[in-house]
Amino acid sequence: MLDSTNWFSEIAPEDGSAFSLRIKTRLHAEQTPFQHIEIFATDGFGNLMVIDGCTMLSSRDNFLYHEMMSHPALFTHPEPKRVCIIGGGDCGTLREVLKHPGVEQAVQIDIDERVTRLSERYFPELTASNADPRAELLFEDGVRWIQRAEPGSLDLIIVDSTDPVGPAVGLFTSDFYADCRRALGADGLLVQQSESPLYHVRILTEMSAAMRHAGFREIRSLFFPQPIYPSGWWSATLAGTDLDPSRFRFEDARAKGFETQYYNAEIHQAALAQPEFLRRALG
Amino acid sequence: MLDSTNWFSEIAPEDGSAFSLRIKTRLHAEQTPFQHIEIFATDGFGNLMVIDGCTMLSSRDNFLYHEMMSHPALFTHPEPKRVCIIGGGDCGTLREVLKHPGVEQAVQIDIDERVTRLSERYFPELTASNADPRAELLFEDGVRWIQRAEPGSLDLIIVDSTDPVGPAVGLFTSDFYADCRRALGADGLLVQQSESPLYHVRILTEMSAAMRHAGFREIRSLFFPQPIYPSGWWSATLAGTDLDPSRFRFEDARAKGFETQYYNAEIHQAALAQPEFLRRALG
Repeated sequence: MLDSTNWFSEIAPEDGSAFSLRIKTRLHAEQTPFQHIEIFATDGFGNLMVIDGCTMLSSRDNFLYHEMMSHPALFTHPEPKRVCIIGGGDCGTLREVLKHPGVEQAVQIDIDERVTRLSERYFPELTASNADPRAELLFEDGVRWIQRAEPGSLDLIIVDSTDPVGPAVGLFTSDFYADCRRALGADGLLVQQSESPLYHVRILTEMSAAMRHAGFREIRSLFFPQPIYPSGWWSATLAGTDLDPSRFRFEDARAKGFETQYYNAEIHQAALAQPEFLRRALG
Repeated sequence: MLDSTNWFSEIAPEDGSAFSLRIKTRLHAEQTPFQHIEIFATDGFGNLMVIDGCTMLSSRDNFLYHEMMSHPALFTHPEPKRVCIIGGGDCGTLREVLKHPGVEQAVQIDIDERVTRLSERYFPELTASNADPRAELLFEDGVRWIQRAEPGSLDLIIVDSTDPVGPAVGLFTSDFYADCRRALGADGLLVQQSESPLYHVRILTEMSAAMRHAGFREIRSLFFPQPIYPSGWWSATLAGTDLDPSRFRFEDARAKGFETQYYNAEIHQAALAQPEFLRRALG
């Protein structure tokens, strides 16, 4: 029914589901030292980046993920100036971070420079802020970079990684979270993409336990639609020492002064609502 | 890549996407006087009902849709006693409605009795409340039933229909909405499934205009994940004369006294948050 010459399909084998996009053509494919990257032109979703067979982003719907990985954390920290993005080589999260005028430096550390170079070519809207003097792009191992980071030198760490298999597996461990915690200041926040609330409750549970084990006292997951990811429903998890809802700078988010497509102050609050089955599972 | 002997796929042709479930076997198929119905046993989603090639519900994720089609409206009306469901032949919405002890009568009018008979067999958990003395199941044309309903005789009308093509097209017109309005009491509410916020903004816009034209002063769409529907993101639209957020009976929802899997008071509020691009599109 779905012919692989016309469709790109990502199968979620354990859940027996698949999401497919009809393709016009494959624009690029390469094996880097770290992973296999493909770029497709699709009929309805613009360009599509696929890494190791998994959809990473499309032109049409990446705004959901990138806005929700950045703005909720940035409007929760009282005064985020020093931001670090681990992974995120497509630069979409970096672009959102740089929309905040209070951010003084934003360093992005992706192990694979080819993700960024291909993004510059096929998703130029996402890399449009890369020349911002506050931005620094490094291509090395984020786990080691965080180990070497000066204690208390960061306000926000955004872990914008692939799934917890392959090169990203080290980004889901309590050792890594402990290094993050040391690198963060007193009000520091960590945010990590945390998979599907429907398919990956076990990953969510284990990630929360690892964050707690690393000394983060409070952990909150937030939820948003992401059509091209398995189940079409995704999450990000915030970790800090105090995530009381009163810390959300609601009025600042209301008066944000930059454009978004999904995020606003009400969507921020809404994303924090816990579905009943997850409230029971996550406690 | 996805072989039709192993997978059921629903294609969204205009958006060039498809969602697929791996199937164990096709349990049933029939052409009724109204539509073509199939039931599949899937690997990861339990049983699946498909009507005219479109996924209707799965055992695994129907809770999202059924809870969001019922509880937000029931906890917004001050005292819902008389409820009518147009469509909804699988009885999942009826089951949720009957969880509210204040509901005195719930009539379900689906044009196709076979949907209910197949649901009794393949989704028995959804039809478990059908013997409730407050429930009445009719199999006739819901548009005509509403035309004949006594003015002011209903508190809540839930339009739990298929997409606005085929037998359901009459359920998306301002004539139908005007008949609904006449059948509703002063505080009466209408709620209608209203498709994907990402794929179907035009349907959402036209439906809102038709509801307004029929005399509903206030219209609010609410949003929720629904993995098996196109884009994995869905909406329901509430219409009434006063939908001020203060009308939401938050404390009653908090103390609801029955189990849900997705819905709770916070999820109710969250579902009403309008994504930025829809705020601009819907005004």
